[in-house]
Amino acid sequence: MEQKTSAIVMKGKPVAEKLTERLRSEIEGLAAKTGRPPGLAVVLVGEDPASQVYVRIKERTAKKLGILTFDHRIPENLDQGDLLDLISRLNSDPAVDGILIQLPLPGHLNEQEALRAVALDKDVDVFHPENFGRMALKQGILRPCTPAGVIEMLKHYEIEIEGKSVALIGRSKIVGLPLSLLLLHENATITVCHSRTSDIGAVTREADIVVAALGRPKFLTADMVKEGAVVVDIGINRVDEKLVGDCDYDALVGKVSAITPVPGGVGPMTVAMLMANTVRAFRDHASG
Amino acid sequence: MEQKTSAIVMKGKPVAEKLTERLRSEIEGLAAKTGRPPGLAVVLVGEDPASQVYVRIKERTAKKLGILTFDHRIPENLDQGDLLDLISRLNSDPAVDGILIQLPLPGHLNEQEALRAVALDKDVDVFHPENFGRMALKQGILRPCTPAGVIEMLKHYEIEIEGKSVALIGRSKIVGLPLSLLLLHENATITVCHSRTSDIGAVTREADIVVAALGRPKFLTADMVKEGAVVVDIGINRVDEKLVGDCDYDALVGKVSAITPVPGGVGPMTVAMLMANTVRAFRDHASG
Repeated sequence: MEQKTSAIVMKGKPVAEKLTERLRSEIEGLAAKTGRPPGLAVVLVGEDPASQVYVRIKERTAKKLGILTFDHRIPENLDQGDLLDLISRLNSDPAVDGILIQLPLPGHLNEQEALRAVALDKDVDVFHPENFGRMALKQGILRPCTPAGVIEMLKHYEIEIEGKSVALIGRSKIVGLPLSLLLLHENATITVCHSRTSDIGAVTREADIVVAALGRPKFLTADMVKEGAVVVDIGINRVDEKLVGDCDYDALVGKVSAITPVPGGVGPMTVAMLMANTVRAFRDHASG
Repeated sequence: MEQKTSAIVMKGKPVAEKLTERLRSEIEGLAAKTGRPPGLAVVLVGEDPASQVYVRIKERTAKKLGILTFDHRIPENLDQGDLLDLISRLNSDPAVDGILIQLPLPGHLNEQEALRAVALDKDVDVFHPENFGRMALKQGILRPCTPAGVIEMLKHYEIEIEGKSVALIGRSKIVGLPLSLLLLHENATITVCHSRTSDIGAVTREADIVVAALGRPKFLTADMVKEGAVVVDIGINRVDEKLVGDCDYDALVGKVSAITPVPGGVGPMTVAMLMANTVRAFRDHASG
């Protein structure tokens, strides 16, 4: 019997650090040439504690890289017109390269309308439907953050995607759906599973790579993957004050060839890709 | 042994006729209310014989339904600026509800730029990336013609889609890719196969529904589907002056539970859905 080699634990931090290191030097070069740093406007409406944490991490990372942040913390009771006015001002502000509207917005605001108001060339979250369409049709230059982060992680850990069968569980507009398209662009044979799939295990057991992005703690169990599969866990679930992924990590790690931990897996990549998009927008603004 | 019941041959014509009948009466009602018929502008650049045939079929169908067509047949040597000017005039013409730019455009023209110049609310082919994105994100009202035609056909023949496994071969921007998204919206478990898929047969043999949209004559053979599968053939290949689909119809028809013929299958649905989009745009323009 072949000796079982231990699984590669695909941590996000070293990948994110390598990427941000590259971005830092790119920013230095571009800032020297253009005489200004890249700018990221961050809009946070209300007091949602999780959103506050996310925004803080994003702003801190941006500052470390030499990206100027414009902080817009706005009371919960802001109305739609004022939000659209703010977005319009940020759209025309030449110091702002990227606009980040932290979701979810309070229920009385029209999220879809707000996201569509963001200028296409500053839409660093890639939430505007035109940018989504351009991405789907391979015409875009900005890639959705978490999905692009997954691709970068797999490449960093030298996991081949082309020609591989990928089972993706989940089809959210922010993660599952755009990731299915990016994986297709990487020439994977992609199957999208979801709540209406009759037998998810039957699909995942055949797959070379399984991606869990459905938001259910420990949904993917060891009996649902084949020996030596690669598992990517995009879930972040809070269970008894602890963060738990969509995968049963402890059981899977003995069976798979590579797996992302939660926390410490895909998470850091989302922020890094947001920075990459901001720098990409900066570069385009600088050259145009 | 159970007696083999014969396969349902899913012809497009009766489905298209039922749909156009519904559209005809809808147009009558709306035209009476608004005092004008719906208008479809058809732009054909150059003399491509296949394009001329397609345009003729579309215009004839439109006229039969009471849709006014604005015919723009333009010499091959038109330049990009003139094309954009024409699109801009059609965009602002209140008698025009839909704009159809017959593809392919001659090689010296920038197709992508031209399609993006079409007003979103007149983009009845759903080729603008923003409309593609809206469709993908379920925010759109217009659906790409051939993909939507396939969905309507399956519904007409009472083929259940929800929860079924669908193997789709092909990922073109006009057919395969948007169809994969519409099938996902219908709650199918969708696998997209393509030229880099290592074993297409292994995927299709597991599928409840197999859709061939790759453009290779008789690619899908009987050994590639399971007994009782549903097969949709979107291929139109010209072989020895005859039209041949992507499926080996004669061999498949004895094994499957339902199959579309070529010609006479999905083909008529594309034109019918174009009319449906034109009427949908007309209704939206009429309502303000």
